[in-house]
Amino acid sequence: MTIPSNAISFHDKQIALAHGAGGEASRRLIEGLIRPAFSNPILDGLNDSAVFAAPAGRLAMTSDSYVVRPLQFPGGSIGELAIHGTVNDLAMAGARPFGLTSTLILEAGLDTAILRREITAMADAARRIGVPILGGDTKVVEHGKADGLYISTTGLGIVDPRANLNVARIQEGDKILLSGPIGNHGIAILLARTELEIEADIRSDTRPLTPLVIALLDALGEGLKWLRDATRGGVASALNELARDLNTFISIREEAIPIDDPVRGACELLGLDPLHVANEGQFVAVVRAADAEAALKALRSTPGGQRACLVGEIESGQFGRVLARSSYGGTRVVEMLIGDPLPRIC
Amino acid sequence: MTIPSNAISFHDKQIALAHGAGGEASRRLIEGLIRPAFSNPILDGLNDSAVFAAPAGRLAMTSDSYVVRPLQFPGGSIGELAIHGTVNDLAMAGARPFGLTSTLILEAGLDTAILRREITAMADAARRIGVPILGGDTKVVEHGKADGLYISTTGLGIVDPRANLNVARIQEGDKILLSGPIGNHGIAILLARTELEIEADIRSDTRPLTPLVIALLDALGEGLKWLRDATRGGVASALNELARDLNTFISIREEAIPIDDPVRGACELLGLDPLHVANEGQFVAVVRAADAEAALKALRSTPGGQRACLVGEIESGQFGRVLARSSYGGTRVVEMLIGDPLPRIC
Repeated sequence: MTIPSNAISFHDKQIALAHGAGGEASRRLIEGLIRPAFSNPILDGLNDSAVFAAPAGRLAMTSDSYVVRPLQFPGGSIGELAIHGTVNDLAMAGARPFGLTSTLILEAGLDTAILRREITAMADAARRIGVPILGGDTKVVEHGKADGLYISTTGLGIVDPRANLNVARIQEGDKILLSGPIGNHGIAILLARTELEIEADIRSDTRPLTPLVIALLDALGEGLKWLRDATRGGVASALNELARDLNTFISIREEAIPIDDPVRGACELLGLDPLHVANEGQFVAVVRAADAEAALKALRSTPGGQRACLVGEIESGQFGRVLARSSYGGTRVVEMLIGDPLPRIC
Repeated sequence: MTIPSNAISFHDKQIALAHGAGGEASRRLIEGLIRPAFSNPILDGLNDSAVFAAPAGRLAMTSDSYVVRPLQFPGGSIGELAIHGTVNDLAMAGARPFGLTSTLILEAGLDTAILRREITAMADAARRIGVPILGGDTKVVEHGKADGLYISTTGLGIVDPRANLNVARIQEGDKILLSGPIGNHGIAILLARTELEIEADIRSDTRPLTPLVIALLDALGEGLKWLRDATRGGVASALNELARDLNTFISIREEAIPIDDPVRGACELLGLDPLHVANEGQFVAVVRAADAEAALKALRSTPGGQRACLVGEIESGQFGRVLARSSYGGTRVVEMLIGDPLPRIC
């Protein structure tokens, strides 16, 4: 028997509970809007699961939910973030993305123009990266039981064979690199949300980090020891988690950390430590001391890595603490984020 | 350097926004509650991604969100459902589960006793099935922006080499089997939600379907052509989707479909067609006519499959329609679910 191509179009103006019920309206939404946007050979043959030949080697798998508010902000939107964020978690394992799945939780009453915009943003981001969306699911909850839409994305990736990322390989004297300027994402979200009269062109740094990680692996191979993207909780939380896992001091030179002037100004005005502000396109890397120069060169010669810099090193010590040392000889402890000054940042 | 085991305990009474902020409170929640419950070697070495050797063969990958209301209901709860449902989508591809990831969206103000109960339900369900939880993510939204908790689960599975499930292999005369009685899940949810004075012991049928699918593959191999779990939209939607994909009539004998008396009674009282009511532990299978008896025998000799039965067959015809034929010679068209009589059923 032949499988006909049932061309279904989706013209509903608002999302209703029926779009999540598995019946006629669900089929219209999925076949008329979502599947055409994400079209690829595996998805197009979709049943309840995507089926594909297992790639060889080591796999990485990661899942994240995205609840950012507002849905659209300077420099990006939830749909784009839901692709980049998951691809970046794979990159932090030294993995290239093989395929993604995404689930949507929609609020009844959502304008379908917004849904269409975010589905398009997801499809475009995935296409630019070259990763197929293999499947997904859509649920609808009553008006007032979500905030427009929430997305959860899972990534399956293939770990680069040269990657040997393991916190246990880190030693005293290893260097800490940062991929670029911090704080743009968090401050862009905060300004998009508030009525503050801050006139600043601050845009989210959301972007895929895979090319920068591949550049490091090309240059260092096993000399690359650890990666962590500085998302929720910022650079401070990434480094504090590392310090605790190592149970040793980590020092950073605060002057070395690139922060754009508008971001620095907004942080001063708002009383925020830029080290605690979330990023969506920056990561911290730990490398062998002997490889630090080569690592910087590799990052800086890759598009988007021009402002990478060396910001600190692994020290000895009996406690897991992050110390910021200034050029004047002062030292302060950089605490992990306490509380939540910026809820729903991603 | 050695990695110390930082024993962290979690005693917070309610979920707050800070538990999703990536700082101190997030770490307490994850290290003190979630990670110990799901503990396994891959998860315990977790960074942003789980990393593991690729299994050989064909893989299946599927994602679903779970927004069922209420969180707990007779026969199950959202946590158990979020494991079974995803494992069952893998089973419908002929796959055994290899690993799961789960993301949580929590509402600020959620009683952590409820979260602990559902985390435990997830861990217990995964342990009974023997599938590890490889990773996840937790976000918190403001009070009033979710409904307690939502879960999204992704499953990676290994397709049984004997499985050759493809709608294009279905032919006229193939038989349609049903794994057991229908309607229990949807009616259990509905009764748990309402003030109706129906005194009936109706429990959700949530359960893993993998053993029944493996029994079919053991007995039939390639004779098994197609599987679909009859969740949202019920058996009617599963069969209507099949009929449309085939563009042919499908007939069922309504009298052959097992429905427990309390479910039938509740459906009559509420004006619901049991064929539209959601299930969480039943599936429809299409098999070669010559294999129907062997398939029934295989299902009935597997725990939980005793009430499997032959309910219909693939006919010819120019339209994708599901026809219910009665023993009195009558025929009615079984429509796909229109609207949503039972929102948030899974």
